[in-house]
Amino acid sequence: MVGKEISQAVIRRMPRYYRYLGELLDEGVERISSNELSSRMQVTASQIRQDLNNFGGFGQQGYGYNVKYLYEEIGKILGLNEKHNIIVIGAGNLGQALANYVKFEKLGFVIIGLFDVNPALKGTLVRGIEVRMLDELADFVKDHKVDIATLTMPKEAADSVADLVVSLGIHAIWNFAHVDLQVLDENVVVENVHLSDSLMQLSYNIVKSHTKE
Amino acid sequence: MVGKEISQAVIRRMPRYYRYLGELLDEGVERISSNELSSRMQVTASQIRQDLNNFGGFGQQGYGYNVKYLYEEIGKILGLNEKHNIIVIGAGNLGQALANYVKFEKLGFVIIGLFDVNPALKGTLVRGIEVRMLDELADFVKDHKVDIATLTMPKEAADSVADLVVSLGIHAIWNFAHVDLQVLDENVVVENVHLSDSLMQLSYNIVKSHTKE
Repeated sequence: MVGKEISQAVIRRMPRYYRYLGELLDEGVERISSNELSSRMQVTASQIRQDLNNFGGFGQQGYGYNVKYLYEEIGKILGLNEKHNIIVIGAGNLGQALANYVKFEKLGFVIIGLFDVNPALKGTLVRGIEVRMLDELADFVKDHKVDIATLTMPKEAADSVADLVVSLGIHAIWNFAHVDLQVLDENVVVENVHLSDSLMQLSYNIVKSHTKE
Repeated sequence: MVGKEISQAVIRRMPRYYRYLGELLDEGVERISSNELSSRMQVTASQIRQDLNNFGGFGQQGYGYNVKYLYEEIGKILGLNEKHNIIVIGAGNLGQALANYVKFEKLGFVIIGLFDVNPALKGTLVRGIEVRMLDELADFVKDHKVDIATLTMPKEAADSVADLVVSLGIHAIWNFAHVDLQVLDENVVVENVHLSDSLMQLSYNIVKSHTKE
């Protein structure tokens, strides 16, 4: 089923399903109707059925969804049944914050290396992970399987660091630098996180709510 | 023009226009055609025209867009012509990372306070901002105009802190806790940032790119 062409809009909603199903599991809920899931997630039941039908359904009419089964299947769709080794390049505050997120590890994303160009950070330990210098990356990649490179450096350096990690055979980039990375290799997948975009969206909604009043 | 009902999908694209136009301005570009902007942003020219028409257009047929004018108008739409005072609740790594983002300040989002419940952090300075204890928040809000509260604490505490900030009259929440906040007050705007959702989307695209090979 994985590999079928599914719209990115549907994919963007999947992690949210996964998160809510995980909470239901934690609460000991074994079975849930699309109506109950709908009211909990504040999306329509028809949206839920449509989204899940992209992957073959998972529900039985009048019987609801088996929470554990659905959770695991969505996990597989999202690739969470495999462990992903991550490195973080840029060991400033944001890089260290990401390295400290234990939540990622629970999802199978394990941070195995931290890199920076600032010699003052060399050898610093963050949750037991040593900060290495960027010129040690090539050797590190020879010895370790790296699935994802996280970039948290200033935008001026981001494109060249992206080129470096791609040249070393890393095929996935999680980018926090303030730029949409231009990676020309079509085998490389990039996810850009623009925190300031989300702040601007909030600010739009503040203005809108004021004009409503 | 602001206040007209525009779909959130269009709004989500606006910060990206703003970012690209800012880069053009930095490069000294005064005028750009929708075709040039299209190839730069990798969206269709017709999408750009459609998006901007929601706000009245801004372009003249065959003449292109005035970069500075368009940048400023989109800035106004996004509420960036006003300063927004922000506080950050949760002064751990992520809270400190956010307080250190000078980029936000350039956009008019000024972090004026940092709060935590951990007494060990009391008085710590982050870019000149003192970490205060959460029980000082009520007094702080009396003395300072706070537009946005950023939440970076564990999800277990997030709903009660959200209730607290709303009760103190703060009407916008930028939430990094791993939970979709349930704020019932319809005058309060919430923007949830789920970093792990973005990581899962990346992981989906990794799986998909492998099955293509």
